[in-house]
Parts: sequence; structure tokens; C-alpha cells
Amino acid sequence: MENKIIIALDCMGGDNAPGCVIEGINFLEKDIKEDLFFLLYGDEKKINKYLSKYPEVKNISKVYHTDVYITGEDKPSLALRKRDSSIRLAIDSLKSGGAQAVISAGNTGALMGVAKMVLKTIPGIDRPALIQLIPNFLGRSTALLDMGANIDCDSMNLFQFAIMGSAFYKAAKNCNNPKIAILNVGSEEMKGNDAVKHASQMLKESHLKDNFLGYVEGDDIMKGLADVVVTDGFTGNVALKAIEGASKFFGSVMKDGFSNSLISKIGYLLASSGINKAKKKIDHKQHNGAMLVGLNGIVVKSHGNADKVSFANAIKNTVNLVKNKINDEIISSIQSSDFEKEENDIED
Amino acid sequence: MENKIIIALDCMGGDNAPGCVIEGINFLEKDIKEDLFFLLYGDEKKINKYLSKYPEVKNISKVYHTDVYITGEDKPSLALRKRDSSIRLAIDSLKSGGAQAVISAGNTGALMGVAKMVLKTIPGIDRPALIQLIPNFLGRSTALLDMGANIDCDSMNLFQFAIMGSAFYKAAKNCNNPKIAILNVGSEEMKGNDAVKHASQMLKESHLKDNFLGYVEGDDIMKGLADVVVTDGFTGNVALKAIEGASKFFGSVMKDGFSNSLISKIGYLLASSGINKAKKKIDHKQHNGAMLVGLNGIVVKSHGNADKVSFANAIKNTVNLVKNKINDEIISSIQSSDFEKEENDIED
Repeated sequence: MENKIIIALDCMGGDNAPGCVIEGINFLEKDIKEDLFFLLYGDEKKINKYLSKYPEVKNISKVYHTDVYITGEDKPSLALRKRDSSIRLAIDSLKSGGAQAVISAGNTGALMGVAKMVLKTIPGIDRPALIQLIPNFLGRSTALLDMGANIDCDSMNLFQFAIMGSAFYKAAKNCNNPKIAILNVGSEEMKGNDAVKHASQMLKESHLKDNFLGYVEGDDIMKGLADVVVTDGFTGNVALKAIEGASKFFGSVMKDGFSNSLISKIGYLLASSGINKAKKKIDHKQHNGAMLVGLNGIVVKSHGNADKVSFANAIKNTVNLVKNKINDEIISSIQSSDFEKEENDIED
Repeated sequence: MENKIIIALDCMGGDNAPGCVIEGINFLEKDIKEDLFFLLYGDEKKINKYLSKYPEVKNISKVYHTDVYITGEDKPSLALRKRDSSIRLAIDSLKSGGAQAVISAGNTGALMGVAKMVLKTIPGIDRPALIQLIPNFLGRSTALLDMGANIDCDSMNLFQFAIMGSAFYKAAKNCNNPKIAILNVGSEEMKGNDAVKHASQMLKESHLKDNFLGYVEGDDIMKGLADVVVTDGFTGNVALKAIEGASKFFGSVMKDGFSNSLISKIGYLLASSGINKAKKKIDHKQHNGAMLVGLNGIVVKSHGNADKVSFANAIKNTVNLVKNKINDEIISSIQSSDFEKEENDIED
């Protein structure tokens, strides 16, 4: 157990829980499973039903029963009062040091509220943000934040998101000087709302100024112009989901195209190995797992409708964050940047 | 001339002007060209250079020279002062009845500002909005508004966008009862910012209540759940461009997939007729031309980097709006709905 990475899993969150969680663990490659141990929080009857099917998973996990859980409709305020919920107990285990990371496919607002209350934010950070890696033209990834944890954001929030996004990208992608941009409706100086304009000014005057590209637009996200794209949680959530929806639409239209005639079908069969490689690059399941950055602990949100493939990828991405000591990177980035002094200078 | 539709074109707006404008007209099918006449506003030397190549276009157009034009960087306030700009003169011709519609690929903010000042909004409407049709899973189109004319929107703006979007969809798509939804970060009641929540409440209490579906998320846009999706101009612009970016990314990844091996390349050749049909469905050039709804006149914004194919489609979409008397539909929809009384009731 000593060298194993211990991950606490909320087994009651999302559309396919607890099935996707247990099947997701089972779906992991053998050599990855060997290094991991899971704390499973939720209804033991439901969990055990799946564990009995997968003895390999049973061997590397321990069930912590609770029949309290948070639904997709629960307000964060209610979630905060449910002290024995599966999300809460999983986060408590991270706080107490029993686990090194938490994953939940449940209610984003509840996860954010409970995690912030229990773990507290890193000094200098007002609000955690959801950060998601998405594929880009350069064959690398673009980190987009916030993906929906903060609906209304001011310029200081956006500025802090840039700091966290940059530190995250350094740790998660082993990149020394990630390029940062703010998402806007145009690349010209005068475009955008006040929060965006002011955050841009703050970044130009900060220690990140050499890596700040200015504004990018929605169609630049996947071009890979910037490594880190900063936006408020409303816009980020819509943009990410719009991209997912577009991918599904294009996949479906292409499928129709291939079924167009017998010749097209034969063409499809011949091209299928290339097409499958391409599909894998596009498939959002490969990129599941958005970290809630800015907290004293690694908390990862899985897509609510994750299946086993998707959940397995969330686990793998989380393991990577633990191994790369993502939070040490964020904290040292904030400390070395004289960040709080900068904030005060700007506020003065 | 009597039965021809007369369209005023800003020949100086966008990345490829005036080339894309003249070549766009030339690219139109012969039977469409026969019914049209164009008023071309801009630098006559530059315009004539292209007209000399396309005598067919020269025969169905008249050049109005001006050497004043609005750049992509000009603020709307400056645009309002440039009384002889190509955009302004084109809109003046609509106001005076010389043209039945205006198309510009130029600065959106300037187009919005000048059009609003000269044409004024339809009674009951505070701000015009950019509305764009995009393809969906059902093989129909979804209308998305606002696409970037209004960066900050309150609930009353969103409510009015719903009214205009519904009327637009009726006229443009010949659909009696378009389903309306508000774009949000979740489908649950309590999700979203105040503007979204309040606009939802207003729609539930309005004459549109039977056609109001509530909230949809970013990935629902292309599913076609709703015919009209309402959002603020910041989010709408980012969402539309994110979809465009995803479409380009998808195309590029598929291309790589087909080049993967000789067998894949042969497969591609065999499947190419189906693939080309699919590509046409996805290609945003087919859907170019966003109407600025809510004005006393038909004003259409073309994509800034439109080429001839794209600009030709903007013309065709504009002709369709003129033929279907889009603004009569909006005005009668507002009048028959007792819209202003509803607004007052809600404000009380």
C-alpha cells in the first residue's frame, strides 16, 4: 500500500453511477491498476453488485457506505448541509490525508461548494476553477478554464485563472512557458466586456506578461494559438459543450456520408484504420476529467454522462496530476511570482 | 428593374473586399442573378478592377464611389461620425427605399451602430441582435441569437431576442410554432446567471410559453432540440466560433486519417462522393449571412473572412429574407402578441 496512489471516488454522482466508476476502474490497463488503490464512497449494496462482477477491482478498493448523496438538482447550499454525502466523505478523506485525490461525476456546483468549504483555497486564490484539456491542431492540448464552476466572474477572478492555468499547464504538460490568452469576441483591444478588458490589462502588467498573447476567439481554441485559454465559467461551459456537440454532429454526418452508396461503404472499410485513429483524437472521452484548480487538494470532475472508457481516462488524468504534484507547482508559482503583491498593486 | 430585388453591398468590409463581393455575385446561379440588382458602395477604382473581369456582374450593378470606409479596428463611435463611409451609404440607400436589403462583411460593431442610428429599431425592441442559422442533427437549421451585436445583455434583451428569433424562424424557415430555448450551463431550474433565470421566467409568463422549452446546453445546439436558441452576444459569438473551429479541426483530423496509409487513401477516393456531401452539410460557408434582426430594414452581416462561395450564400440567404418579408413577420408577431403590454406587466 505504501507506494500506491490512493484515490477517493464518489460512487453516486453522474448519470451512470456507480456502474461507470467500477467498470471504469476495471477498464484500466493492468500495470496502471497495480499502482492504485480506491476508496469507494456510496451505497454499498449498489457498489457491491458491481464489485462482485469484477474481483480485480474488489482487491484494490475499499467500500465506505453511505446512503446520503447529492442529486443533480440539489443546490450547493443543500449539498453543504449533507455532511454524510458520498461527495463530502470522499473530500473529507482527501482533507485527512487518507486519499491523494478525489474524482466525482456528480453535481458540479455541489462538488465546488463542498470542496471549497472543506479544503479551502490556496492562499492568494479567491475561487477554484474547472480546467479541461482539449485537443488542438498542433497535436498537443489546450487548457480551457473556467469550465463552469463560476458563473459570474470579475477581472480578478480571470487574472487568477490565468495564474492557475499557467501553473497547471506547466505541471500537467511539462511545458516551461505556456502561452496564455483570454477568450473574447474579437482580437482587437477595445472588444469585450469590462471584466475581460481589465483582466487583459492586469496580465500585461504582471509577471506573466511575456507569455500573455492577448485575446483569442472561439475558433482559435482548437488552433492551439494559446496553451491556456481563460474565460468565465458560463462562456467556458457553453464553449466546451458546443465543441462536444459539434464533434458528435460531424461524426454523425460523416457516418451518413459513408453510408451514401455501396462504393462509399467499401471506401469506409478500407479507410477504417485511419478513420479510427482520427476518431480517437476527437473523442472527448479521451480527455475526460477536469481538475478543480485552486484548492488545497486534487479534486477532479468527470463528465456527468461518463461511461467506463471515459471514467477510466478521468482516473488516468488524475494519476498524472498526483504524480506531477500539480498543487505544489501552483503554490510555488504563486509564491515565486509575488502574486499577492501584484494584486495589491493593481487594486491600489 | 421593377421586379428586381435591389441589394446594397458594402464593398469595403471584411478581409477579402471588394474581391469576394464581386466574385460572390458572379458565383450566383444565372437564374438567381436575373432577379437581382446590386448597388455597390466603395472605392470605384478597386471595384471596377473586378467588374472589368466580370461583365455579367457589371450589367446588374451600379457603383457608388466613396473613399471613406470603416476598418475592423474603428470603434462604433467613430463609425457613426463617418457619414460618407461605404457602410453608411449602403444603409442610407435602404432607409431611402432605394434598396431592399444591405449586406456587409465589415466591422460588426460599426454595422450595428450605424444601422441602429439610421434605421431605428422596430417599436418594442430595444436592441437589434445578430441571428445565424446553423445545421442540426435533424437536417434542419437551428437559429442562434445574439451572435455578438450585444456584449452585455439583461433579461429584457434576452426576452426580446426570443420574440425576434421566433418571428425570424417562422419567416425564414416557414415553421408555424418554432420551439424556443435559452442557452445555459445546465438544464436545471436554478442554473445560470440572473439574466438567464429572469428571462426564462418572463418567457414562461408570455404568449410564447407553449413553445418555450426552458434551458438547453452547448451540446444541445446542434441536436436541434430547439429551433431558436437565445443567448447574450458574448456567449453566442464564442459558441458559434467554437463550433466553426471544431468543424475545421474535425476536417483536418479526418484528412490526416485518410492519408494514414495507401489503403486509407484508396478508401477515401471510393468514399469521396459521400464525404463531399457530408462536407457540404458541415461547411459554414453554406450558412453565411447573419441577419441583424430588430431593425426597420433587412441588414445582413457576412463572415469577415468570406470568400466568393461564402458571400454568394450570404446573398442567397438575404434574397430569401426579402422574399419572405421577414420584417413584416416580426412586426406582426410583436403586434399580435400584445408584446409591449407584456413588457409593462413584467416591469410593474
